[in-house]
This record gives sequence, C-alpha cells and structure tokens, in this order.
Amino acid sequence: MSKVVLKRKIAPRIAGGHPWIFANEVEKVEGNPEEGSIVDVFYHDGKFTGKGYINQQSQIMVRLLSRKKSDVIDDEFFLNKIRECWKYRQHIGYTENCRLVFGEADGLPQMIIDKFNDYFVLQTLALGIDKWKPAIVKALNTVFSPKGVYERNDVPVRELEGLPQHKGFLSAPFDTKIIINENGLKFHVDIENGQKTGYFLDQQDNRKAIQNIVKGADVLGAFTYTGTFEIHAAYYGAKSVLGLDISENAVAQANKNAALNGLEKTCRFETANAFDVLKQWGKDGRQYDVVMLDPPAFTKSRANIQKAITGYKEINLRGMKLVKPGGFLVTSSCTNLVNPELFLQIIEMAAKDVRRNIRQVTFQTQSSDHPIIWGMENTQYLKFLIVEVD
Amino acid sequence: MSKVVLKRKIAPRIAGGHPWIFANEVEKVEGNPEEGSIVDVFYHDGKFTGKGYINQQSQIMVRLLSRKKSDVIDDEFFLNKIRECWKYRQHIGYTENCRLVFGEADGLPQMIIDKFNDYFVLQTLALGIDKWKPAIVKALNTVFSPKGVYERNDVPVRELEGLPQHKGFLSAPFDTKIIINENGLKFHVDIENGQKTGYFLDQQDNRKAIQNIVKGADVLGAFTYTGTFEIHAAYYGAKSVLGLDISENAVAQANKNAALNGLEKTCRFETANAFDVLKQWGKDGRQYDVVMLDPPAFTKSRANIQKAITGYKEINLRGMKLVKPGGFLVTSSCTNLVNPELFLQIIEMAAKDVRRNIRQVTFQTQSSDHPIIWGMENTQYLKFLIVEVD
Repeated sequence: MSKVVLKRKIAPRIAGGHPWIFANEVEKVEGNPEEGSIVDVFYHDGKFTGKGYINQQSQIMVRLLSRKKSDVIDDEFFLNKIRECWKYRQHIGYTENCRLVFGEADGLPQMIIDKFNDYFVLQTLALGIDKWKPAIVKALNTVFSPKGVYERNDVPVRELEGLPQHKGFLSAPFDTKIIINENGLKFHVDIENGQKTGYFLDQQDNRKAIQNIVKGADVLGAFTYTGTFEIHAAYYGAKSVLGLDISENAVAQANKNAALNGLEKTCRFETANAFDVLKQWGKDGRQYDVVMLDPPAFTKSRANIQKAITGYKEINLRGMKLVKPGGFLVTSSCTNLVNPELFLQIIEMAAKDVRRNIRQVTFQTQSSDHPIIWGMENTQYLKFLIVEVD
Repeated sequence: MSKVVLKRKIAPRIAGGHPWIFANEVEKVEGNPEEGSIVDVFYHDGKFTGKGYINQQSQIMVRLLSRKKSDVIDDEFFLNKIRECWKYRQHIGYTENCRLVFGEADGLPQMIIDKFNDYFVLQTLALGIDKWKPAIVKALNTVFSPKGVYERNDVPVRELEGLPQHKGFLSAPFDTKIIINENGLKFHVDIENGQKTGYFLDQQDNRKAIQNIVKGADVLGAFTYTGTFEIHAAYYGAKSVLGLDISENAVAQANKNAALNGLEKTCRFETANAFDVLKQWGKDGRQYDVVMLDPPAFTKSRANIQKAITGYKEINLRGMKLVKPGGFLVTSSCTNLVNPELFLQIIEMAAKDVRRNIRQVTFQTQSSDHPIIWGMENTQYLKFLIVEVD
C-alpha cells in the first residue's frame, strides 16, 4: 500500500480527529498511488495517522476513513459503516426518513445518503469515495432491501475532484416520484429532479417546532420551495397560509403537496421574488402573525461572506417588518459559512434597523440525523431560529 | 417624580435595550427619591431613557420597567404585563405549568413567577419590584383565580438590595405539597421547601429530548434532585434507571415521584456523592448506555469561573467514562457564567482527556417559557447537551 507522510508542522486539526489532509501538509507520497485509492498516512515521526483515500488533483489530498491500523478498507468496512449509521439513526428516533450517512460526521467523508422510506439517494462527492459506490450499494441492499437506489451526483463540487456530474439509477429503474410521511403529513419527493437529494430532511424537526405559534395565525412563508413549512403551518391550525417561491415549478409542487394533505383551502402558493414582494408589502403595511423565511445560502465561498451577511440581513429585515407586534419570525440559514453567532448578530442588526425588539423563542440546528462534530465545520451548517417580534 | 440623569459616557447596553443602570453610569439624582420608588431616567442630553425603580443602596441603581414616556407604573401596568406574559406562554404552547414571568426577559426585572397548574410561586429579588407584590398578586387573582400564591423570597441575593429573606403565603394558606403533570407524568412539587420555586420548569422540554435514546437502555443519572429526568427515562422505556443525589431528602422525593408514576420497579434512587461514586465506578469499569448529569452551578461569581470550569470538566469526564461505546451522555449546565461556547469547550476537553470521540446529537437551552434576550446575559443560562460517546 502507498504511504503518505505528513510534514512535521501540520494543523492540530488532524491529530484532533479531522479527516482532511491538505496537499500543503504532506511531506511526501511514497509508492505512486492510483488517484482515489486507499493509502496509509503517517505523522512525520513515523507514527500511524490513519488510512484514507488519496487524490493528488484535489486541494484536499487525503480524506481519512479510519484511524485504526487494523481496519481493512473493503466492502465489509462499508457494510459495517452503513450498519452503524443506521443503528445511530434508529437510536435517536428516525425510522422512515433520515439522512442515513452524513459524510464527515459519520466517518465517511464526502458521502451523503438520504433514506426516503424504501428509497435511497446517494451522493459521492470525492473521487476516493465515488470508487466505493458498488460496495455502498451492496451494503444498502444487504441492510435494507431497498425498492430503489438513485445517484444524485449532479453537483458542481465533484468537478474539483475531476469527477463528472451525473445522475441515474444504482438499482433497477423505479418511479422516482415518491411520497414520504413526515410529522403526520405526506410530501411528494422528486428524487430525480428535486433540489439536492430531492428533499430537505434537515428541517424535519424544525418544521415541527412551529406547531404552537401558528395556531389561528395568518402566516406568510418565503422561499417555500415545495411548501413543507407552510403545509405544516396549515396542518397545525393556521388560519391562512401564503407561500412564495420564485420558481414556478416549486410553487406547482407546493400546491400539489397542499392538495395531497387536503390543505389547499388554507394554504396557497404564489410565484414571486420574495425580496421584491416583501419590500413592497412592508411599504403597503401588510402584517402577518408569523413570517417564515428559508432563504438560500447567498454564497458558497468564504470570500463572498459579506454577500451572505447582506442577503440574510436584508431579507430578515423585510420579513420582520411584516410581523405584527407580538408575532413571530421563523428564520433559517443553511450555510456553514455563517456560524450560529454570526447569524444571531445578523438578525439582531436587522431588528435594530427596523426598530423592533425581539426575543429568542427557539434556536436549533439541523435535525439529529445530521450529527455535528465540533471542529468539522461542514457538519454544523443549519441555523433555525424563532423570535418573537415586538 | 424624581429624575435620574445618566452620564455622557454610558454603556451602549442601555440604549440597546438593557434595563440595568449601574450607579457609576449616573450623573445625578434629582428629587431625593424614596428607595424602591419609580423614577424617570434621562440621557445626558435630556432625552428620555425610560422609567424604572431606584435603589441607591444597590450596585444597580435603576432597573427600567418601561421605555415609554406615556407609561404609568401602577397596578394596571403590572396587570397588563401579567396578561402579556400569559399570552406569550399560551402562544408557544405552555398551559398547565410554565415560568409565567422571567424577569428581565419579560420587562419585569428581578421578578420571577412560576405557574404550577393553579398555584403560583413568586420571587421579587429587588426592592423596587418587591414593593409591587400586592399589585402583582392582584393581577394574578384577576387573570387566573389561583388556588394559591406563595412567595419564595428565601434567596440570599435579596440581601444585596437590603431585603430580608422570607417565604410565605400571598394568598389564603394552602397545602404547599402539590402535584403537577409534565409530559404525561406526575411530579410532586414542594412549593414551600423545594429548591428555588420548588421545581425546575426550565428543563421540561429537555426531559422530553431523552425520549429516544433511553429506550431499552441502562441509565445512570447524577444530581437527580427529585428524579425528574430519571423518571422520564423509565417512562420512555429504559431497561433500568439508577439516580444519585447527595441529599437524602431529594432521594426520598425522587422515590416518591417514581412510585407516583408506577415506575419504582425500573427506577431507583440512592444517596451518593456523584463525584466520588462516578470516579470509583469508572475504575471498576461499570458501563451504562446513557449517563445523565445535571450538576449545580459550582460557582455564583465570575471571579470563581475557573472553579466552575474545573467542576464541569471533572464531572463530565467521570460521566463519559461510564458510557458504553455508542452510548450517550446527557449533560446540563445552569449558570450563565458558563456561556454555550465555553460549555461545549469544556465537554470537548473532557472527551479528549478520556480519549473518547463525541458527536453532538442535541444542544438546547432552557424551555421557551424562559425566553432569551440577546445581550441580557442572565436570560440565557441553561445549556442542555446530548452527545454520542464512541
């Protein structure tokens, strides 16, 4: 097996458990490893670091899969990992739907698997994990006997690894339009064409968190995508719910989801640019008991962090203006570039600008099937906040 | 009305909404106000700041009750406040039991009211709010028609305000040993002699958060007080639950609570010093699926913060050692002196010391009936964390 030897001075990150080894932390590579193959990694003093997959074309040269010298990275290794992942999710109460594998947080860097009842959607975002797709599919077949496995590797980040964007079946073909149950509701999931893996499981517990505040309320939701928060609001007893999304396709899906739950009378959706519409309605003096915002990340790079800050501040400011005194703002941010403290600061700035006093009701992260490992910043990305706006 | 004029240079805290005005921020007091009476406060330039109660014997000279010039601080003011407080709690889903008034976070500095179904327990921790006790009791009578109101002012902090420690009835006497319902369970509350107001409502939602991880588990709880977490664990399907507390009285209460719920066969309690016992059991190699720690604050002053850090680290380290690989540590900290980031750092240090890898499952604060106002640090005090320990 090829060997990677680290420099004397490496980030304490690696010894601390982080699985990424950057190219500039590597002293030498011995044995001419094939890209994507498994290598043994050693500290400068010869002590064993771990084993992982290598890609010398990538900024992150090695991603560690194990810290145990005795581990053999083979089909059985991945089978055991999948079993562990499933055991954890069952333990914390997820059965029908969950993020079964959450990459780094599950010791499987750059691998994502979402379980939608009997269907599985997979992303392998680095070359060295992409190579193990057959092993992973085999493991899924062994543990779950799935009705279908699908690959949603149509993700630009793969190109950094020299991998093509691609989507398609990893099982016999099946109807990729499925229905899942969540919190007593049903939702259409479009495995082939939905965003990311088709559905945002990370908000599944947060959707439940609006349960009390929406009772009898007039609710406005923006960036609704397929309407999951809004349909929850209607289900939990909102008087009226209006959801906005810029995508006609998302609005059509949202209306379909409302109808699927018999909530189309309470819950309607419109195609609109939330930034513009919220601004105008603020001027018009429209008011809602609850305003819910689930905007996109605004940026994907740390260099553009100011863009994200401006975007979040602006949309939250516009949303807050529409909240009746004593009402609630429900707001999310889904990029790890904005950490929890920064997110709260942004919301505070927005409140100051619109001269509203706010109180924190709830502050959560993604649901627990996406566990967080401190120091692995890409494992902590979702912020979900409810504030009372006075 | 007497006037307080602030210095030119005051903390931005005050303009930002914080209700405390320290003596060293005051330029002059005009009109010889009676201690505890209501004063108008002005910025140095003559602009109105707010109105609040004064105590020149206290480090915090004024605590603001309102920012509105038009507000009159009278019985009706407090009635309206109580109504608002109750409306908020109902809105967010609390009905039977809740912290009805959470001091600064409800615009009523140093006033605490806990509602235990038809009973109310009150704390007035500053002179200026203590004076309004009759108005507050009147308001409670108007809004709730309580079966009883009790004062738990046996709190040392009152002495900083020149107030005596005291407890007693603020209504016709009643049996102060009552029973409340929480998450489908029943608990004895000793209004007269229990800790603080008799019961820790701030953990009511966190107790529910252990629901999944305790199923079929052997559970150890330390610092159990009256056993609420442990009895929840038994109720949620733990195989066995052992709770430890150093107080014989607490253990007796906990056993009574277990029996009240018919869970005395699964759930037993023992008198023990958790520090010693956990250390010994760690040496003995005892292992549990779930270890729950709810220790006291370890310090009440910022000067002794290191004591708190050492205490939390040590007990969590000892607790973690007792967790089976793949099991869970459930751990709390109830002092605002240890902020959420510091708390996580302490847990991380403990994990490093015992060479265990941990993953964050859940990280929460106190329940939402104790809302948080950012910048008012005494409103954010409880940290509740579940980590998987590998």
